[in-house]
Amino acid sequence: MTIENVKAVVFDTFGTITDWRSSIAAEGAKIAHTKGIEDFNGDAFARAWRAGYRPGMARVTSGERGWTPVDVIHRERLEEILPQFGLDMLNDDERTHLNEAWHRINPWPDSIPGLLRIKKKYLIAPLSNGSLMLLTNMAKRAGIPWDFIFSSDMHQAYKRDPKVYQNAIALLGVAPHEVMMGAAHNDDLESAQAEGMRTAYINRPTEYGVDQTKDFKATGSYDIIAASVEEVADKLGC
Amino acid sequence: MTIENVKAVVFDTFGTITDWRSSIAAEGAKIAHTKGIEDFNGDAFARAWRAGYRPGMARVTSGERGWTPVDVIHRERLEEILPQFGLDMLNDDERTHLNEAWHRINPWPDSIPGLLRIKKKYLIAPLSNGSLMLLTNMAKRAGIPWDFIFSSDMHQAYKRDPKVYQNAIALLGVAPHEVMMGAAHNDDLESAQAEGMRTAYINRPTEYGVDQTKDFKATGSYDIIAASVEEVADKLGC
Repeated sequence: MTIENVKAVVFDTFGTITDWRSSIAAEGAKIAHTKGIEDFNGDAFARAWRAGYRPGMARVTSGERGWTPVDVIHRERLEEILPQFGLDMLNDDERTHLNEAWHRINPWPDSIPGLLRIKKKYLIAPLSNGSLMLLTNMAKRAGIPWDFIFSSDMHQAYKRDPKVYQNAIALLGVAPHEVMMGAAHNDDLESAQAEGMRTAYINRPTEYGVDQTKDFKATGSYDIIAASVEEVADKLGC
Repeated sequence: MTIENVKAVVFDTFGTITDWRSSIAAEGAKIAHTKGIEDFNGDAFARAWRAGYRPGMARVTSGERGWTPVDVIHRERLEEILPQFGLDMLNDDERTHLNEAWHRINPWPDSIPGLLRIKKKYLIAPLSNGSLMLLTNMAKRAGIPWDFIFSSDMHQAYKRDPKVYQNAIALLGVAPHEVMMGAAHNDDLESAQAEGMRTAYINRPTEYGVDQTKDFKATGSYDIIAASVEEVADKLGC
């Protein structure tokens, strides 16, 4: 393992640093409750909403669609699923507020303690498909101590498009092996590795709940394999 | 004054948030001392170095030169002035370290107290000609509490190129009047105003020392005119 020269550690956020499923389930359940819906399944709502995420980004990456901010992709999917969850009575303000639930998702319990330790030795930032406003709001609300923020808008591309990793390295002005990618998704790390970055796998086997079909363990050869961000800090000697 | 809708306040850094002159003078004097130079004028060194900054950026803005990171512009000017300050004996490592003095400049005394107050109500970030690494290192070393960082590399342009202000607004995904620019330089604020941004003038009449020829006071009509970042916080009701 040659991680001596790493200067910055960048992290996937949705799933790796934050637990979107429980946060979105709670936000959905909250508004459903105010509307008098009694049999609302928050977990199913979160998973159904999330299911539109990858296909929405794929249309941008394939070139089928021009650059589209992630908040728009979230909103379009929300509109699709509201009827099936009995929430088609929501007005525009309520839909906007609910869409911004993605700006309010909570970190996993180990994320902030781990990041605070890693931050003492390295620059830390998200390398996420979130927008600047989403990632900044999320960090500020939850106290995630990023040194700076990379957002998908800065790259005008979504992971796993190689442009994202290349642009992050270029903006940092360092060599690819001086940046480490931390993620709970094997394909994200494989894409980072293809650009010469160092990699840290963080296992999040419950991220998708009953919908989880992969990423139960590291399937590649990474510099670090850990069960938490705190364990990444341990292995980085922080 | 209609600043009710402002969501983010972005700041010039060199001169507005930080006092480059005294910081660079001290770094120059320190290395000169280790080389046995007794009559080194740190203040003149800082001003001479800074004098290459605007012309270096102007060549990029005019299109005479392609995108050139600010650390390169700093280094080229450093090479020019080292002989006249008796520092031509510096080796490459020493030159690199000295060039990174711009990553280590200190805030004015009112900057961090003011930013901490503004941050409670608004998103805060630099909108600076610094590079990502420069601005991140500077903030981390000095404890400047930015929520995120805009760097010139993200815009591939230097202020006062309109592209910088336009790109910052676009990355935030808000209306121009929802962003306020804070700066000690009238032309920076005029450029921000031309894009529809709100403006806060912060007076720094000693920034350039004996070289200061302008920006002794606000010469335009700004939303806020203040003598410190703390006074900006006062006027924003923070």
